[in-house]
Order: sequence, then structure tokens, then C-alpha cells
Amino acid sequence: MTASPEQSGAGPLAVWLIGARGAVATTTIVGAAALRLGHARPIGLVTESVPLSAAPLAPLDSLVFGGHDVTDTPLIKSAHALCRDAGPLSPQLVRDLEDELAATEPCLRPAPPLFGSRPALQFIRSVQEDLAAFRRSTGARRVIMVNLATTEPPAPPELARCDLMQLEAGVAGPGLPASLLYAYAALDVGVPYVNFTPSIGASLPALEALARERGVPHAGQDGKTGETLLKSALAPMFRMRNLQVKSWSGFNVLGNTDGLALSDPAIAASKLESKSKVVPAILGYEPHMIVRIDYVPTLGDWKTAWDLVQFDGFLGTPMTLQLTWQGSDSALAAPLILDLIRLVDLAADRGERGGLGHLAFFFKSPVNSDVHNLAEQYTLLCRHVLAA
Amino acid sequence: MTASPEQSGAGPLAVWLIGARGAVATTTIVGAAALRLGHARPIGLVTESVPLSAAPLAPLDSLVFGGHDVTDTPLIKSAHALCRDAGPLSPQLVRDLEDELAATEPCLRPAPPLFGSRPALQFIRSVQEDLAAFRRSTGARRVIMVNLATTEPPAPPELARCDLMQLEAGVAGPGLPASLLYAYAALDVGVPYVNFTPSIGASLPALEALARERGVPHAGQDGKTGETLLKSALAPMFRMRNLQVKSWSGFNVLGNTDGLALSDPAIAASKLESKSKVVPAILGYEPHMIVRIDYVPTLGDWKTAWDLVQFDGFLGTPMTLQLTWQGSDSALAAPLILDLIRLVDLAADRGERGGLGHLAFFFKSPVNSDVHNLAEQYTLLCRHVLAA
Amino acid sequence: MTASPEQSGAGPLAVWLIGARGAVATTTIVGAAALRLGHARPIGLVTESVPLSAAPLAPLDSLVFGGHDVTDTPLIKSAHALCRDAGPLSPQLVRDLEDELAATEPCLRPAPPLFGSRPALQFIRSVQEDLAAFRRSTGARRVIMVNLATTEPPAPPELARCDLMQLEAGVAGPGLPASLLYAYAALDVGVPYVNFTPSIGASLPALEALARERGVPHAGQDGKTGETLLKSALAPMFRMRNLQVKSWSGFNVLGNTDGLALSDPAIAASKLESKSKVVPAILGYEPHMIVRIDYVPTLGDWKTAWDLVQFDGFLGTPMTLQLTWQGSDSALAAPLILDLIRLVDLAADRGERGGLGHLAFFFKSPVNSDVHNLAEQYTLLCRHVLAA
Amino acid sequence: MTASPEQSGAGPLAVWLIGARGAVATTTIVGAAALRLGHARPIGLVTESVPLSAAPLAPLDSLVFGGHDVTDTPLIKSAHALCRDAGPLSPQLVRDLEDELAATEPCLRPAPPLFGSRPALQFIRSVQEDLAAFRRSTGARRVIMVNLATTEPPAPPELARCDLMQLEAGVAGPGLPASLLYAYAALDVGVPYVNFTPSIGASLPALEALARERGVPHAGQDGKTGETLLKSALAPMFRMRNLQVKSWSGFNVLGNTDGLALSDPAIAASKLESKSKVVPAILGYEPHMIVRIDYVPTLGDWKTAWDLVQFDGFLGTPMTLQLTWQGSDSALAAPLILDLIRLVDLAADRGERGGLGHLAFFFKSPVNSDVHNLAEQYTLLCRHVLAA
Repeated sequence: MTASPEQSGAGPLAVWLIGARGAVATTTIVGAAALRLGHARPIGLVTESVPLSAAPLAPLDSLVFGGHDVTDTPLIKSAHALCRDAGPLSPQLVRDLEDELAATEPCLRPAPPLFGSRPALQFIRSVQEDLAAFRRSTGARRVIMVNLATTEPPAPPELARCDLMQLEAGVAGPGLPASLLYAYAALDVGVPYVNFTPSIGASLPALEALARERGVPHAGQDGKTGETLLKSALAPMFRMRNLQVKSWSGFNVLGNTDGLALSDPAIAASKLESKSKVVPAILGYEPHMIVRIDYVPTLGDWKTAWDLVQFDGFLGTPMTLQLTWQGSDSALAAPLILDLIRLVDLAADRGERGGLGHLAFFFKSPVNSDVHNLAEQYTLLCRHVLAA
Repeated sequence: MTASPEQSGAGPLAVWLIGARGAVATTTIVGAAALRLGHARPIGLVTESVPLSAAPLAPLDSLVFGGHDVTDTPLIKSAHALCRDAGPLSPQLVRDLEDELAATEPCLRPAPPLFGSRPALQFIRSVQEDLAAFRRSTGARRVIMVNLATTEPPAPPELARCDLMQLEAGVAGPGLPASLLYAYAALDVGVPYVNFTPSIGASLPALEALARERGVPHAGQDGKTGETLLKSALAPMFRMRNLQVKSWSGFNVLGNTDGLALSDPAIAASKLESKSKVVPAILGYEPHMIVRIDYVPTLGDWKTAWDLVQFDGFLGTPMTLQLTWQGSDSALAAPLILDLIRLVDLAADRGERGGLGHLAFFFKSPVNSDVHNLAEQYTLLCRHVLAA
Repeated sequence: MTASPEQSGAGPLAVWLIGARGAVATTTIVGAAALRLGHARPIGLVTESVPLSAAPLAPLDSLVFGGHDVTDTPLIKSAHALCRDAGPLSPQLVRDLEDELAATEPCLRPAPPLFGSRPALQFIRSVQEDLAAFRRSTGARRVIMVNLATTEPPAPPELARCDLMQLEAGVAGPGLPASLLYAYAALDVGVPYVNFTPSIGASLPALEALARERGVPHAGQDGKTGETLLKSALAPMFRMRNLQVKSWSGFNVLGNTDGLALSDPAIAASKLESKSKVVPAILGYEPHMIVRIDYVPTLGDWKTAWDLVQFDGFLGTPMTLQLTWQGSDSALAAPLILDLIRLVDLAADRGERGGLGHLAFFFKSPVNSDVHNLAEQYTLLCRHVLAA
Repeated sequence: MTASPEQSGAGPLAVWLIGARGAVATTTIVGAAALRLGHARPIGLVTESVPLSAAPLAPLDSLVFGGHDVTDTPLIKSAHALCRDAGPLSPQLVRDLEDELAATEPCLRPAPPLFGSRPALQFIRSVQEDLAAFRRSTGARRVIMVNLATTEPPAPPELARCDLMQLEAGVAGPGLPASLLYAYAALDVGVPYVNFTPSIGASLPALEALARERGVPHAGQDGKTGETLLKSALAPMFRMRNLQVKSWSGFNVLGNTDGLALSDPAIAASKLESKSKVVPAILGYEPHMIVRIDYVPTLGDWKTAWDLVQFDGFLGTPMTLQLTWQGSDSALAAPLILDLIRLVDLAADRGERGGLGHLAFFFKSPVNSDVHNLAEQYTLLCRHVLAA
């Protein structure tokens, strides 16, 4: 499988989800079916609004889904578990789509085992076999992998200093994060890769080198859906108006499995690092930053973020802004997944390779970009997609 | 007095404030003195932050202040009334600046009487005489008028249909709003005019024609300092992300004289109209909008705005954002007054005439601009000022 | 029909709802059925929690419902209109209860016409005939009337000065509020009356005299379900701690027909008066009070209240408390309706007559009580009900 | 020194503060002086409002202050550090009181060293000598000790199982918390003790036994000033209305030394345990509870608490309440210190001994009381004080 031009021909666009039975993946699959069958309008899809809707993107109804998961909860059950009041889905919608979900079920496969004596190389081969089988069975013109799996603890910092040869030597041994192996497996066989999580995925120099060598694009890292989205929209206001932010304290509570994973401080470290750097990057200085994520199981997929911004105005006058954001975590993420699939597919069609900096708009820690200001990110996105 | 190039020479830049003893004017005068004497850093001044700080603007310490007011409260007393907890000023700062304020006191004059049998023309002549006297006494290279007076009720709509000749015919009679007569008086003698209030001022075709004829610039209307500032920063986020705003309800409470005036529904109408159009203009559709301003005298100059944004995400999932903005009304406005004086002065130096659309960044109802998105306004501002 | 002791025998307890097809009435009818059939737990019912659950109250499954409404929307349709996201009901629950709702439908009758040439006396007779027919058809041991109709404008103040004879003389003529005529009709034939709205109902001396003369109890006025409930729980904290409340500003947005009616300032006056007096009554002094209700149709039955409490602490230190209450208006009211029916029935059994002051716990403007502190109201309620 | 009746005679009431140069102690000393000299009204003092103002309490102007601290910052400097915007004090007030503060300065002594080889017994003797000297020098009729020192980590649980003999044996050795030794020192010589912190102080059986044996009262533990105060006022509303609280998440940010200490998880454990039990105790069941305290130095003494209460209403309808509390930590605590000194003094006059359960109103973890409901606590307080 390579990113050769003939891929852009007929056939569906196949999407391989890592964490395919989780809340975001389930909402993505349900949502794509709902759009295809006319049960919903494309609210929340950036690629369905002006001006990006004018780009030559894959039709939404050309998407087919498969993927890996470490659990075996049936997709229909995952969908019902996301119904109100625990999640965004309407029970009626899920009932109406049960046939669709049943049809996707056979495309979901158990994640290959990673831990223990089994070498990483064997894991990579398993993944690649599943990708190839999925491509064959769907007749897809292209497969794109999307990482939606539970956040991993931060990767060892020395990985950032490996070159591709060193990494490939290391692949023979144990201890590499699954997200990295998945990204390697995909890029190695020309499958574009999207990392919607804070896990390391393809965001290290060795993988960037692999992507460029194989001529395949990738996107990431850590989808920007809630509190950080707000920060990237609001922090520029303080900078433009020369108001001095003294502290920005953000508290997030949520109850889905993402919340559960993030209640482990080791795992939260990945996310918090990603969330903490946006405001200083935009402001150009370091206010006192607090970012917390707490698990409140009774909230289900509903996430509430409260932010307190303390700032000084003219003559040092102390002022504050508070924000309370209440939304469904999965409903915020899913349309962006659909956007990213289409935009990465277009990039692959155009022969773009490596980390796609113009997709910074979607991410807390964008690869190949240091732009965090939402409006600037949007301008770059539209210009790049429409100009090319 | 004309806007001839030789004005740009030596001498101070003289500022004539309408409503010169009010909270915003007092904070502006105190603030300018505090900056000149090194008592404060220029927080909140857009023209003191990168990139605009590179523009060839008048030095802040070249400003001198005078103005009209309908009350005769001494400036020192106005300043003490704005001390914590009723306003933004520190008692120590005001004590330290008492000499400065005493020195400005003689430049403040009673507003000429308008109502009754006295024709509007006589009012205009009085204003022009005061402007000329102020220019002479200060040796200023230019005078700029800034309207900070209490908001007027909405002007009769037929004024918008008058041409300059009709207006000038009407000037002989009674019934024209004071803000319009002030704007006429200023523009007629080449004095640039800034309208920081929602009152009509120079924002009608006849005054635009006068400004162009006399070759003088003006800016307005209705300074964007709090809730509307936030809206213009946040509404673009909903549009960029294609999230569907269903309602945006905003409630403002404040206790200064502006709050008192706005508790009169006839006067509030001006402000509310100005505040209501920003979100629909940015989104491109009309969500249900509520904007209220209530007078809570115990809050003094401290303004609290609470906004509830109800929006739909993917699959029609209902979500909300709440904002609470707590700030000092005058401390938010005053640095923008200083910015506008410098930017309008620069425009006059460059021979720009008529309503300055590139200053939309500062206003709720910008003249000669239909751009409401804050980031776009900022880009236009910087590009215009630095490119010229 | 009289309030004689033999009523307390066997047979159902019949409830006649004014405004029987509205949101609160529909939720009450659906909720009672859901409880009877075991579809829901009795959350929100005060009479189902310790200690009041020990009182000798009518079983919840003994209630039968009928009533008047000015619209003819079928009850099933009203119920579906209250399904998420517009209201509190789950679509599945409403489907499960369709048979129950269909069985209640025949008990709902058109409200008799009031306006025009038809004298009030004829209106009263029609209501009494409907009550008698309802009692006969259900074999009920007692009928209780509950006013859930749309809020009326404030009644003419001179009504408060009428004695019963004057009122009865006036009943022959036009112009009396419907809620008063309904209350008269009920009390006159020994039907206890509950006024959950701010309309005048039985809350004037002449009706109190009638109730005492006929030996029948009544309860009211204006159910305390949201913002005012919070005020009556929180204002005592400020008083107990001797913190000085300077202002209490409350803003309510909601989208049901109650919200629509209250967007008419004449009607809102009733409600706002009722809502404004609780805090001063508890504190013992008058802080600056703002209470607003705005109609935001996109919110449906979901009501959001935001309150800003500005208070001074030790040494005059300025502090604030903000509250945001987000709930379903009907789901907050309906369980209290069920509580009130049972508690008024018990009072009637015990021969209590006139306005029931011990039910102040449920109301913004309690009849025969000037206690507004929620904890005190609860103590009085429990003591009265359990001691008797 | 014993709690004999003749103490109640003439002479001042001497207050020995542990942590006497901290923010709460400084505000208490400044506040008492401000009240004595008529610079402030007694806002926030429960004992100065009806009905407790009728109790035979020590006059506020009879208080004199001394105490220990581990730092040697002059009191005047501590007071200036608490001026706006970092704390509650007005700069003018502090200047006006400089003489008063200078007069108190000699009464503040360095805390005796505790750690290292020095036995605890020696520490206790030093404290008792300082108490005796303070009493002599002030001619006070009674000394009361108040613990305002930085919160300690939770004490070893085995301490709760010691009896007084075991504890006294242990006092010879190292490792006992300072707050316990201070409490021991005070109670042993008949000095009533107030523990306003979450540290262990006198709240273990052995100290209770000592207090009863010596015939001296004590009060504690952990002053209820902000978020927990709100919880104890609001949780009863949910219980009275039978609304089902599913989660209560509370986030506190503050910037004073208390906040700094609590950013150490070991120390925070004391406070969080104290804060977490109030809501379940009132509700009678355990919702999911989150309590966090974060240090944001730029906030100074200003504390902001945000609480999200998720609850179910009728038919399981999901609703929420949010609270934002913004206040000065020290201004909330200081008047309660003055109240407690007077109320404990009265209890000592009346011969009450051991932990004073009727003072539960003031504490998060009241000794000898399991009442957490604020209104019930207030009723108990007033009844006890006024009935005795």
C-alpha cells in the first residue's frame, strides 16, 4: 500500500479507528451514518461551512469505518451507552441506525496484543495486515488511520532524540508506546495518520522522517474541542487589547473513560502539558497557569470546564473573566474527526507529506506549527486548502 | 483652524473632551498624567503594544486636556469619587496627582446652553470659540474632540436622510441632538472628532460629507469595552467551528452615571441597538438575542456582564457557554481613548478624511466598516496604520 | 359538595387543574402516572422524604386528574412537546404512558368562556357544574382545584379592600380576574384550592372569609421552584453571618409559555413583585434588588437563572456570590403540585380552613404567613403536619 | 492560672494568637483596633447582630492581643501587605492604625523551637511561660489561645486512640504536632483554646479529657468561611426538597500563605477531609465529591471558589447549580475569631468545659457536634447562648 496517485480514483475512503468502540469513535460512526441517511445536518463540521465547503473533499457518504479496540463491547451497545443523559445521542437516532452499526461491527477487530514477550515488530505486522485486509475488503481507494485510543502516559523524552534508524532498531525490543507503533505501522505502508489524542503517535522526529520518506501525510496532536478551544479564541483578545493576564485557572470535570484515564496523574501529565502551553504561546509571556481534569462519573460524556482569568487593565485595575463551558465531549470531537479525514485525504491526493502544519486549527499541540491563535490558524487552514 | 500639514509640527496635542468631568474622562486625564509621571505602565493601550507601538504616533506626554461638561464638580473630586471600591483609581495615585488635576481644572469649561430659544447655530459658535481659545492657550499643533458625554436617546431616523445642505438649514432651528452639533462644530473648523458613545455624533451622511469637504477625519461609534468586546472575540469561534448559536442572552449591571442614564429605556435603545448587531453580523444568521443593561448603584464604576450562549453541536447536541466579565467601566474605556487620540492624529497627519473604517477595532458600531470580528478588525488596523 | 368528614372515606382523590394542558400540568399528570406504574422514583416530592413521609397522606396512586384549559392540544401531544431537548420528559416514558394519557383526555374540558357579555356568575356556575360532574364520574372522595394557568396581570388593588358581600355583588358584573372566579367557584362548593401561580386566586380578604365560612382550606401563592427557592435558602446565610448584602440582581431566561406570558411587562409585574420581596423580608433591610424574566424561546422548558449578590464583609470588604441555576421549570414544579394536593387534602381531613400558612415552604408569597426563610418554613411545615 | 470565677472580674480579655503575624491574625488585630476606634462598623460579627448581641459578652474594646509566630515580619508590614489589591485592608485604615499596631508589636514573641532534640515538654513549658507573662503584663482577667497557624499535615491516626496518660507519656518524646502541644499547654493552665485551623489541636480524646479535668472549654475545628459555609447553607435545600445530588465538585483558588501551604498535598489532606464531609452529613448519602484547593499567588488573599452541583429532579431530570464565591479569606475569618473569643470567654465564665458543641456554626469539623446544617447550627448556638 503506497500513497500513489491512483488511490485517488473511485472507491470509498476507509477509516481505521484506534479505539473504535470508545465514545468519540462511536459518535463519529453514528454521526457519519446519520449524515449519510439524512438524519442530521452537518453542524460542527468545519468542512461543511463556507469557505472550506468549496474544497474538493471526499463526499461524507464515501466513508467506511473499521478499527481496533481493546474491548469487545458491541458498537450498538456503545452507542446506547452514549444516549441521553449520559451522552449526546438521542435514543431514537441510535435505534434508527442499528442496522448501520451492525454492518460496521464485522470491520472492528481486537487490538493485537502488545505487552509481554511479543516483540513490537510483530505488533506492527499485525496492524499492517489488518489495514491491508480492511482495504481489500472495502475496495477503498485509501485507508486513513485515526488514533482515538485512551491517552497514554508521556513517552520517554529520549524518544525525541532518536533518528529513524535508531527507532527502527528499537522497534525490535519492548517498551515503545502503542500509539507510536500504530503510527509507524500506518506511515510505513503509506496510510495517512491522524492523532486526535495527546499520546505521542507520530509526533517525533523519527516518525516525521518516516512519513517524508514514504511520502505520506499525518496530522496531530490532541484535538482542541473545549476549554483549550476557548483559550485559543480568547487569549488573543487580551493580547490585542494589551490587557495583562496574571493567572488563568482552568478546571475540567467529566465522566467518560477519557475522564477516568485522566484521573491517573501519570496519564493526565500528557494532557495537561498540551493544555498549558496555548495561553503563554499566544500572550508571549507566562501568566500563572492551573489546568486540572477531574473524573466525575455521574457526568458521563458531559464535560464542564470552568476557567477563571485574572487580568490587570489600565492603571493596574484588577478584573476577571469567568467561563463555564458545558458540552458533550464526544459531540465536540466527532465532527472534527470527519473534517480531519477529509482534509488529510485531500493532502494525500495533493502529494503533501509529513506533519500537516496547516491543520493546527484542530489541535492543542499542532505538529509542524507554532501557531495557537484560533483565528490565525483558521486563516492558514483556509488559505492552504483553497489555494493549493 | 484647518487640518493643514503645518499642524504636525511642534506643540502639544490638545484633546477637548465632551463630558470632561465624567468617569471615563476623569480616568483618561488621571491615566495620562500617571503615565507621563511614571506612576503606571501603559497596560490596556493598544498603541503601546507590538506591532502598533512602532507607528509614528504622538508621544503620550504631549497630550493636554480641556473640555466641556454640564456639571461643575471639580476634577479632583471626580477623581476621588472613582477611588476604590467605587471605581478603578487608587486613593494614593489620586493624591499624588492632585497638582496635575488642579492644573487641568482651568481648561474645563461649562457646556454652552442648548435648550430653549437659543438657536443651534449659536451653540456651534460657542463651541468653536472654546476650541479656538483652547488651541491658542495651549499652543497645540492640533485639537481633537472626543465625545464622552452621557448617551442620548436615538436620533430621529429622518436625520439619516438629510444631506449637508438640509442639515445646515436645520441647524438654524431647534431639536438637533447635542452630539451632532458638537461633531458639526468640530469638523467644520478642521478638528478631528472621536465619538466613544452610542449617540449620533458624526455618524450620518451629512456629517460624513462635511468631514470630507473640510478634509478632516472622524472615528466612532460606541466604544467596545466589555461584553461586546467578548462577543466580537468569541462569536467567530462558533462560526469557524460551524457550531449553531441558538440564543445569546447578555445581562449587564453597573452603577455609574452611564448605568443611570441607560436605566431610561429611551436612552438604552441607542446602546442596545449597537450591542445587538455584532453577533448576527459575525455569524451570518440571527440567533435569539437578549441584551439588557441594569443600573445597580452600589456597583459604582464596576460592571458585571453575564452572557449565556446556547448552541447546538454535532447531531444537534445542546451545549452552553456562560461568561462573567467583571471590570471597571472607566478603566476599560480610558486607554482606548488615548489610543484613538493618537491614531486619529496620525490619520489627520496623513491627510485621511471622513470616517476612519480602519478603527473598527475600537467600536461597537464602526463608521465606514461592516467588520465586527475582532481579529479581522485588528488585522485591518495594524495593516492600515503600519502600511501607510 | 362540602368539606364534611365523610369525604375522607374510600374513593380516589380528584384533582382539577386549571391550565390542564400546559407544561406544568402535563408534567404533573405524566409524573403521577409514572410513579403509579413504577417508571420513576419519587425524587423531588417533599412528602416522600423523611420526616413528612410518615404523615397520613393520600396514596399517590389514588390521584385522578381532570381540568380546564383554553387550548385543546391533546395531552399526548403536550407531553411529546415536553420531551428532550425542549423539556424534562424522556420520549420513551411518554410513549410508555400514552394509554394513561389517553385515559385522562376525556376528563379535560374547555375552560368556560369568560370575556364578553357573559356575566361572571354564569362562569362560576359552569365551573361548579364541571367540578360536580368530575366528582360524580370519578367517585372521588374529594376534589381539589389547582391553578396552573398562565399568570394574569396584577389585579386591581381595590379588590383587596372588598369584603365578601361587596365581592359577591361585584361577581354579577364583568372585569374580575379568572383566577379569582375559579377560586370563588371552588371554595363556594367546599373544594379546596391551591394557587401555584402569582395570579390573585384566593389571596384576598373576601375569599379568605368565604373559605372560613364554608370551612374549606386553600394554599398559595406562586410556587417557589428556582431562583426564589435559592434566595430563601441563601439569604439567611448572609443574615446569620451578619454580612451586608448591598445588591441582589437576578436574571431569568426561559422559553415555555410561562416565559412568553412574562415577556409582557404587565403580566411580569405580578411575578416580579412576588419574587422581589423574599430577600428583604429575610434580611430585614432593603438591598438594591433587580429581578428580570426574559423569554428565550430556544430554551423551551429549560430555565436558567443567574444571580449576582454583592455584599460587604468585615471592614467593608467588597465580596460577591454568583449563582447559575439550570433546571426544567416543569420538573421543578410538578412534584410540589403532588405534595400540595396531599397536604391540602390532609388539612381538609383535619378540618383546617382558610389559607394554610404552614405551607409557606412551597410559595413565594405565602398566604397567612410572613416567613420566607426556607429552613424556618420547613420546620413549621413538619411540625404542623406531624404534630396535628 | 485556672478557670476560676474571679477571672470574670475587671481587666482586659487577653488573646494569644498562634500565627500572630499571618493574614488572618493581622486582619483580626487591625479589625479589633478599627472597631475600637470607630473606623469600622461590626459587619461580619455574629455576636454584633440580633439576637446574640443581647448576650452578656465581653466588650470588643476589652480585647488585647499577643501571640507567637515563626516569622518576624513586623505587624505593620504584615498589615500593609494585606492592602488592596492583595488583601482586604484599605491603605488609609492601616496608616491610621499604625500606632495601635506598633503598640501590639512587643506582645508578639517568636514561637519556641520545636524540632530537633528539644523535648516537647520543654516546648510546652515555654508556651506556658509566655502565656503567664502575657497575662501578667496585660493584667488580663483571662487569656484565650487561638490557633491561626499554617495547617499541619494530618496527625497520625493512633493519636486518636491515646488516653491522656499515654499522651502525657508521649509528650516527653518527639514527633507530636505543634498544634497539639499548644493546645495541651493552654488547657493545662486553664487557658481556653480555639482551633480555627484543620490541624489536630485539641480535637482528640486525650485533650478532651484534659480540658474536662482542668475545667476549661475549647472550640474547633477549621473555621467555616467560604465554600463550606455555602455548602452548609445550600445542601439542606436539596435535602428538604428531596432533590437527588449526584455530584458536588468544588474548586478553590487562592494566593495567600494558606494557599501556598495547601498546595502541598500532604497538608491539603487535612483540609480536604474536613471540607468533604459536610455535604454527605447533611444529605444522608454520598454524592460524588471533589474538593480541590490550588495556589494562585497572583490572587493574594482573594479567594475564588467555584462549585458545580449536579442533581436530579422529578422523573430523573438532570439539573445543575453553579456557585462562584469571591471573597477575601482573611476578612471572612477575622470577625469569626472575634466572635469565638467572646463566646468561649462567656462559656468559661459559665463554667462550661470541654469541646463546645454549640459553636458548630463556626466550624467545618465541629468538636462534640455532628450538626452541619447551618440553620440548625445557628438555632443551637442562639438557644445555648441566650438560654444559659
